Amino acid sequence: MDVDLKRLYTLTLQECSGPCDDGRIGRAQKFFHSLHIVAVRPPVEIGDRAVNGWEYLVKVTAGTKTTRLGQGMDHDIAKPHDRLAAWLAQDMVAVNALIHARMVSEHAPRIPEVTDHLINAGGKRLRPLLTLAAARLCGYEGPYHVHLAATVEFIHTATLLHDDVVDESERRRGRKTANILWNNQTAVLVGDYLFSRSFQLMVETGSLRVLDILANASATIAEGEVLQLTAAQDLGTTEAVYLQVVRGKTAALFSAATEVGGVIAGAPEDRVRALFAYGDALGVAFQIVDDLLDYGGTAQAIGKNPGDDFRERKLTLPLIKAVAKADAEERAFWQRTIAKGDQREGDLEQALAIMARHGAMEAARADALAWAAKARTALEPLPEHRLRIALQDLADYVVSRVN
Amino acid sequence: MDVDLKRLYTLTLQECSGPCDDGRIGRAQKFFHSLHIVAVRPPVEIGDRAVNGWEYLVKVTAGTKTTRLGQGMDHDIAKPHDRLAAWLAQDMVAVNALIHARMVSEHAPRIPEVTDHLINAGGKRLRPLLTLAAARLCGYEGPYHVHLAATVEFIHTATLLHDDVVDESERRRGRKTANILWNNQTAVLVGDYLFSRSFQLMVETGSLRVLDILANASATIAEGEVLQLTAAQDLGTTEAVYLQVVRGKTAALFSAATEVGGVIAGAPEDRVRALFAYGDALGVAFQIVDDLLDYGGTAQAIGKNPGDDFRERKLTLPLIKAVAKADAEERAFWQRTIAKGDQREGDLEQALAIMARHGAMEAARADALAWAAKARTALEPLPEHRLRIALQDLADYVVSRVN
Repeated sequence: MDVDLKRLYTLTLQECSGPCDDGRIGRAQKFFHSLHIVAVRPPVEIGDRAVNGWEYLVKVTAGTKTTRLGQGMDHDIAKPHDRLAAWLAQDMVAVNALIHARMVSEHAPRIPEVTDHLINAGGKRLRPLLTLAAARLCGYEGPYHVHLAATVEFIHTATLLHDDVVDESERRRGRKTANILWNNQTAVLVGDYLFSRSFQLMVETGSLRVLDILANASATIAEGEVLQLTAAQDLGTTEAVYLQVVRGKTAALFSAATEVGGVIAGAPEDRVRALFAYGDALGVAFQIVDDLLDYGGTAQAIGKNPGDDFRERKLTLPLIKAVAKADAEERAFWQRTIAKGDQREGDLEQALAIMARHGAMEAARADALAWAAKARTALEPLPEHRLRIALQDLADYVVSRVN
Repeated sequence: MDVDLKRLYTLTLQECSGPCDDGRIGRAQKFFHSLHIVAVRPPVEIGDRAVNGWEYLVKVTAGTKTTRLGQGMDHDIAKPHDRLAAWLAQDMVAVNALIHARMVSEHAPRIPEVTDHLINAGGKRLRPLLTLAAARLCGYEGPYHVHLAATVEFIHTATLLHDDVVDESERRRGRKTANILWNNQTAVLVGDYLFSRSFQLMVETGSLRVLDILANASATIAEGEVLQLTAAQDLGTTEAVYLQVVRGKTAALFSAATEVGGVIAGAPEDRVRALFAYGDALGVAFQIVDDLLDYGGTAQAIGKNPGDDFRERKLTLPLIKAVAKADAEERAFWQRTIAKGDQREGDLEQALAIMARHGAMEAARADALAWAAKARTALEPLPEHRLRIALQDLADYVVSRVN
């Protein structure tokens, strides 16, 4: 359908069995991210059969161009993330509506300005998809997986706002960051606000166990960020410290996202543990790949400049592996460029050459593959289900970017 | 007793009936703030009579000098805050022990460095005292008022860390701030860590209602901080906006502190509402007084330089009242100094003269007194109790600083 912006629409969503392509799913996803849901009506059921899909009254407010919304979705979509997005599209509409509803502020108009900017930046919404998939995979039929999915996205967004202040980042996903568009003060305080809003959302689920998991994840995230700050420039950083940082940066929220999905569904303990282990291993694999791409990707593919970690003197896995095998001359090089921060023209290329000499990239890649395999295996206690298979494929897909 | 630092002690606390002075209480409080409790033993009871006080095994680690600890506490202490501190001394020892235990970090050594600095900075511990007093006043005998008192102190400390980044403050309570001693990154991330730790503590109480109250308070705090940021330099700021900022900065945590004390004690609804109303009014009175002192206090009394709000172009109550009554010439003055930020030698004195001309300080002082009276009246549904009287006296004491 053609969507004329700035008008109200009734949007009907239903699963179709016709052919579909990735691009169409991508457009649909983008569309969901930028719309404001005004009202939702569930499918009309006659007997045990729905005669229509969910209907959403939407207000389209972003930009002035029109968007064509794909209608068909099928099971042959190549990317597992897009398969999850397609199957969980109805849940994701509810999640996005909740995110929109809770990102506003009654009193401080600056808040919606910033949060609208963040929303429109898009993002893959990977963490909420993990929560929704875990809950549905465990047979959940209640309403609170939506709250939890919105919660993990809020925590993620709050973390990004503070990260960009800490790293003095100027761009994220190709757009200017909030600390640049407004200022550090705004980014810190709106981050605090989003964190508080996430906290309100999770309290609404009424599950103390879920609150416990998310409180612990929050502490691990903050601890990991502090550890990363002090580990930077420190050539003594070990792989164990790196793993702790990675758990804080990425894996703690991934594992909390999948674990709370299982908990809210009332899944048995072995399945909850399996979902936790999956999220943890997926998160570690994801972050190792991200760190590898910093040395090997293109600016377009990774949304930032390659070599940023080297310039910011961050000790990520390939560098830690190379430092561990350094001879005296190489050690002097790392000492100058990383510990002292005295970097010159050609140093990045030199760093890459030293890493190549010791097979540091290959070793890090092998670690990422091992974590992905661990994620795949972790899910085996879960029932055979297309969502389980998509989650397992997601682990392989994450590392395929460097394979 | 003389305390030889760097050794382990068994410390016995008991209420005494002998004469006492404020200074001794102050020293005792300072001592409790800087000690690490290793173990606690409750009073030995024979029949219904305790034959000794609580015993605390303490490890003294701060500094190298010795401290003399006052032993007598009585009911004639002049300041209501010190009366509360004396009566709730046993609870406060447990609160401080919990704060010490939870401010550490397993993985990131930077965290205890910063939190030790914050702990040693002292502070009045007013918010935890409010929680303890509210819970005890409602007859609470369980353990969780201690968790909640530590929670509100953690939220307060996290807020201060972020505030100092936002305001680019260099000193607080006469000591260098964390953003200056370390850097903004550290202050932001350790603030996030403390906020997460507060969240873990409150989850341990197992009370969803308490979680709901504290989640809402957190959102109000963050919203108020953002509002303050955008209201600065804006001559259109009304008293209603100021009140919203004050609720965020101060009153939301005061009212949550007293309300959760009542809730954890299972107090009837009218008493819980009374405790909320008391905390809210006390917080507003407290902040108006703070803002008045910025124009009238001495650097020593207020722990910062008088006139800072004027220099930072913050619209606090006296200024808002003066702007509302400004003639054309005065309006031009405010336009230049506050809206444009073009401040010159003698402008602060000129600002004070204009405020005096319109009775702005007196009017703000009258507002503070009215809020204090509201706080006193709010507590009337609570039972006659020395804690209730101390809380009511505290409201008067808070405004006595400008009376």
